[in-house]
Amino acid sequence: MKELKETITAKAEYLGDGILKADSFVNHQLLPGLSTRMGKAFADRFREQGAGSATKIVTAEVSGIAPALVTAQALDIPMVFARKKKPAFMKETLYEASATSRTKGDDVTLYISSRYLEPDDKVIIVDDFLATASTLEALVSIVKQSGAQLIGIGCIIEKVFENGRQKLDHLGIPIISLAQVDLVDSGRTFTVL
Amino acid sequence: MKELKETITAKAEYLGDGILKADSFVNHQLLPGLSTRMGKAFADRFREQGAGSATKIVTAEVSGIAPALVTAQALDIPMVFARKKKPAFMKETLYEASATSRTKGDDVTLYISSRYLEPDDKVIIVDDFLATASTLEALVSIVKQSGAQLIGIGCIIEKVFENGRQKLDHLGIPIISLAQVDLVDSGRTFTVL
Repeated sequence: MKELKETITAKAEYLGDGILKADSFVNHQLLPGLSTRMGKAFADRFREQGAGSATKIVTAEVSGIAPALVTAQALDIPMVFARKKKPAFMKETLYEASATSRTKGDDVTLYISSRYLEPDDKVIIVDDFLATASTLEALVSIVKQSGAQLIGIGCIIEKVFENGRQKLDHLGIPIISLAQVDLVDSGRTFTVL
Repeated sequence: MKELKETITAKAEYLGDGILKADSFVNHQLLPGLSTRMGKAFADRFREQGAGSATKIVTAEVSGIAPALVTAQALDIPMVFARKKKPAFMKETLYEASATSRTKGDDVTLYISSRYLEPDDKVIIVDDFLATASTLEALVSIVKQSGAQLIGIGCIIEKVFENGRQKLDHLGIPIISLAQVDLVDSGRTFTVL
């Protein structure tokens, strides 16, 4: 997605150690026009790749909520965001799976209520980054626990040097990234592919 | 907002002790059509009340992100969501303020980077619930620290029995709620006003 690639080039900051800071348009501030167009780009790409029949978008709080919501708007289907704390007032069955946050350095457990993922759902998972794929693998596990069919995965920015895509390839479903970045200059900076 | 009031009546659950569970359309699953229309309703109400010149929407993660984003879409201005953990990679000045989560029972500190709130900003704060107003008061503090002008506050659901509005009235700005609920039957159930 050209607009996103230009935004990354202009505004993302490489902090070293594989960390790409996208605070001004993904992780702290959101630009509504760009966000809305990212949702439409996801929807177009998923439709092109045969995943237009999705019935639900799944993501994880916090930074997944915005890209998942705009994709849900574009496909006009509900979105469910996994919680990182077990909600005290959810008494129903919860699906759960653990992920390691590379940038935050701790393990988190993700929870989704069985009320919002059902065996006849066709699910697309959307998140902000595809890096090590730890969060995405946890969401894949939750979708499988529910019996729903996973038909696509999308992320805004894929950090190809983290090789997360290889961990998801075995699923045999479309994996869409709106922009890919790689490290160059012996890891001292990044480039948008 | 009639559609929202009907949704609350049909889908929200009262768990006792003042807790209203809105998991199926606010806090866990989001319905894109309803969400988009809530954003437009916020924008219409703020314009009617003289806050149409806003330059930024401010909210707090997690459940504020969706209503703030749809309002930002409707007003076509950026949105900033306060983080609940101090981001390890933000080296710039951070504004911060503490809030007590009534439903989660713990104190949280909210952080917003000084990069995304500036003295010439006109800010509308949007969150999911107006209950005790603890989170909203923390966001008000952050906006004041930045020197920006606060021109409106909006929430999806106002729990009038928690009296949060009274804590914000002194600000002298429009406080919009798309639906108000109160307890009835000696606190055994709720009604949409």
